[in-house]
Amino acid sequence: MSFSQNDLSEYAAFAGRLADAARGESLTRFRKGATIFNKAGPWFDPVTDADREAERALRRMIESVYPGHGLLGEEFGEREGEGAWRWVLDPVDGTRAFMCGTVSWTTLIALEHDGAPVLGMIDQPFTDERWLSVGGKTVYTHGDETRDVKTSGLKDIAKARLSTTDPLPTGYFSDAEAAAFARVAKAARVARYSLDAYAYGLLAMGEIDLVIESALQRYDYAALLPVIEGAGGVVTNWQGERPGSDDKGEIIAAATPELHAAALALLAG
Amino acid sequence: MSFSQNDLSEYAAFAGRLADAARGESLTRFRKGATIFNKAGPWFDPVTDADREAERALRRMIESVYPGHGLLGEEFGEREGEGAWRWVLDPVDGTRAFMCGTVSWTTLIALEHDGAPVLGMIDQPFTDERWLSVGGKTVYTHGDETRDVKTSGLKDIAKARLSTTDPLPTGYFSDAEAAAFARVAKAARVARYSLDAYAYGLLAMGEIDLVIESALQRYDYAALLPVIEGAGGVVTNWQGERPGSDDKGEIIAAATPELHAAALALLAG
Repeated sequence: MSFSQNDLSEYAAFAGRLADAARGESLTRFRKGATIFNKAGPWFDPVTDADREAERALRRMIESVYPGHGLLGEEFGEREGEGAWRWVLDPVDGTRAFMCGTVSWTTLIALEHDGAPVLGMIDQPFTDERWLSVGGKTVYTHGDETRDVKTSGLKDIAKARLSTTDPLPTGYFSDAEAAAFARVAKAARVARYSLDAYAYGLLAMGEIDLVIESALQRYDYAALLPVIEGAGGVVTNWQGERPGSDDKGEIIAAATPELHAAALALLAG
Repeated sequence: MSFSQNDLSEYAAFAGRLADAARGESLTRFRKGATIFNKAGPWFDPVTDADREAERALRRMIESVYPGHGLLGEEFGEREGEGAWRWVLDPVDGTRAFMCGTVSWTTLIALEHDGAPVLGMIDQPFTDERWLSVGGKTVYTHGDETRDVKTSGLKDIAKARLSTTDPLPTGYFSDAEAAAFARVAKAARVARYSLDAYAYGLLAMGEIDLVIESALQRYDYAALLPVIEGAGGVVTNWQGERPGSDDKGEIIAAATPELHAAALALLAG
């Protein structure tokens, strides 16, 4: 690879400043929806504001500090760079969580080199939790506490704690995908829903063992790959290939290769 | 009623001390599951420990300070009192959330007078959030911030943010209950799952508009009634009656009487 650990350390510090700036736009708007709803028009406006203003702030910072880097964001699309680096941003992943006052929405920041994510960050402002992966390890920060994290190491699907954002075919899943997920859910011990990208943070720290989703965009999962892999987990599409190599946005993340293989087999039917 | 505001103020302060003590048993065991799981036997043991040790601590405090009061707890059942007062405790509501590292588990504390809850508390230790209702108003505390809260005031079900812990008939709902819930979900704007009692706290502060559940026990919902009603919301069973007047544990909580009526009609089919 044509970059140094020094580069990565610099970019990791910069990603932290990006996440801090995003908090200034998102957390200040969090749980203000009901008030605004009662005053004015459609009550989801503040969410859109949080998304847009956070992405604007982050794009300004990147364009100022690294004008040659590429940029892909959920709200304002792609800006071509001049070299191998591209930042991938989802300023507020989990818009529905944000709208409902739950604390699973996050800011997702990835840095790609020649299309491969080499840095990933998941940031939850309200709980003050942050997962940063760079150089092959994942570090979790909660308030003043900082520590390396690992997945649970679980291999047995019968003991697995499973998560997806919506198990119903009325959500992100097609009918076939919902049926495939239900096969895994039946084999697992417990399932939790509506966690968005926060579930991958929990997987990286050993609290959830398996996350299965569909219809994810590049900005939804680019940051998750280093976070999961840096904690010893496995993440692919539902065919066991590199995420993004099909067009369905199907993602499976697992604590171990054994658990990943067992879940893939159940998804295949 | 045969008690004074002074009594209630004293009991509210005591409930705060109970919740603090529960944190000492639950939060210290939170997100330690994977480690213990990898070391020893079944990985849900630490959860049971958190439940049991928290309830033991709370029962000791109540028996010491108010020896004549009755007591109902999830883990150790009922102790008859000598008068009108009974404490109702769920030391860790949302055991599955606790097991999966998510932050929707809570400690629930209610105080009943002649069978009617006159004080309710929902406490989330990790996020440091607490809802206390006494004397007809609900107060929310987050860290150093304390404020009265109200529901969203939403009347239109088409804009409603809906929640239930598990929408599938494989969870708490019967097939008929899951179908009834699905009718409401189809009419509402957005649904969030797996929130346990935390959803009622969000409803009380205007972030969720409607919560519909089944199979709840007295210790699951006694604390929720004052919290919802003190914030201007409505809470009944699925027949619109006082919760607990049937044996299904069906509960519906809504931001307004209008929203409550609309959801009840859809549940009835």
